[in-house]
Amino acid sequence: MERLQIEVEASARHIHLTAEALETLFGPGYALHKKRDLSQPGEYLSEEKVRIEGPRGAIDKVSILGPLRKGTQIEVSLTDARVLGIKPPVRLSGDIAGSAGLTVVGPAGTLVLAEGAVVAKRHIHLIPETAERYGIVDGQIVSVVVGGERGLTFDQTAVRVHPNFADRMHIDFDEVNAAGLPGEVMGTVILK
Amino acid sequence: MERLQIEVEASARHIHLTAEALETLFGPGYALHKKRDLSQPGEYLSEEKVRIEGPRGAIDKVSILGPLRKGTQIEVSLTDARVLGIKPPVRLSGDIAGSAGLTVVGPAGTLVLAEGAVVAKRHIHLIPETAERYGIVDGQIVSVVVGGERGLTFDQTAVRVHPNFADRMHIDFDEVNAAGLPGEVMGTVILK
Repeated sequence: MERLQIEVEASARHIHLTAEALETLFGPGYALHKKRDLSQPGEYLSEEKVRIEGPRGAIDKVSILGPLRKGTQIEVSLTDARVLGIKPPVRLSGDIAGSAGLTVVGPAGTLVLAEGAVVAKRHIHLIPETAERYGIVDGQIVSVVVGGERGLTFDQTAVRVHPNFADRMHIDFDEVNAAGLPGEVMGTVILK
Repeated sequence: MERLQIEVEASARHIHLTAEALETLFGPGYALHKKRDLSQPGEYLSEEKVRIEGPRGAIDKVSILGPLRKGTQIEVSLTDARVLGIKPPVRLSGDIAGSAGLTVVGPAGTLVLAEGAVVAKRHIHLIPETAERYGIVDGQIVSVVVGGERGLTFDQTAVRVHPNFADRMHIDFDEVNAAGLPGEVMGTVILK
């Protein structure tokens, strides 16, 4: 059977905010300003940036992604986590119960979060047509092979299927660097 | 056939120096002070640290490994390379021709290197007895599977065989973080 080739995109550290969190950080009635669209339909990079602070260190200029969500969530790499001095769990987006605490600092206020910081579990977004064509179902765990001189196979890759998605794999910069990826590359999906 | 299980060790950024480079950085007649032995026989972590500087940024407290070598070589991660603003190639130790330039600063002097900075190619050290038992030869490229929630398969792993080695796999911290390794773990070697 033909194997699915998927575009592998790097996700830099970023934050998703609730409407309430945005007002705390930027002031009452504030709205995000779109800088550019992301590959997933409706998702965008905003112009706004915040500082995140952990018990050990801080990172400035962390991007806020829009639109606003029902939960505030900070996605960092394990390299970032070491700088910050936190131990975030590896999670799929939205699954923040019991995740690491972190402080977020905006121009108008500070948010002290008891939880919300995670390391993104590597994952693939698929539209139902693609999933069906390749015999893949929502929630399936697959492996993705990338080539090159640091070639590796990302096992434990979670697949999410939804009509509003675009077909993409998302990994963080530790994973990008481990694979030595020169930019966006294609990965081959292996079903086990 | 039984598969080789290998201990996977993380290599932090470090530098190997020539006798001449050590004198430039620490002064005439200086000798390294051993802090602790490393897993490879004869290799050790010294007490001495240096600063490395690239066109974009610098990193302090980079460990010097002993004993002294015939070539000065700095091994950094791709995360480090971004901080420094350099583009080191992925190489096996000792292969530094045409690698990235970098400045090394010690307490007694500065070394401006036109080449010497590399990203370590992931590799396995084996003694001949182990290699023979598992049908592996010096220079072979193998894959190594590590488990866990960020489990992955390190393809493009170079094997080096020598009687003075100890059986270990070495990866850098980008690779450790990409695999979410909690510490030293065992990997399973796959021959392709």
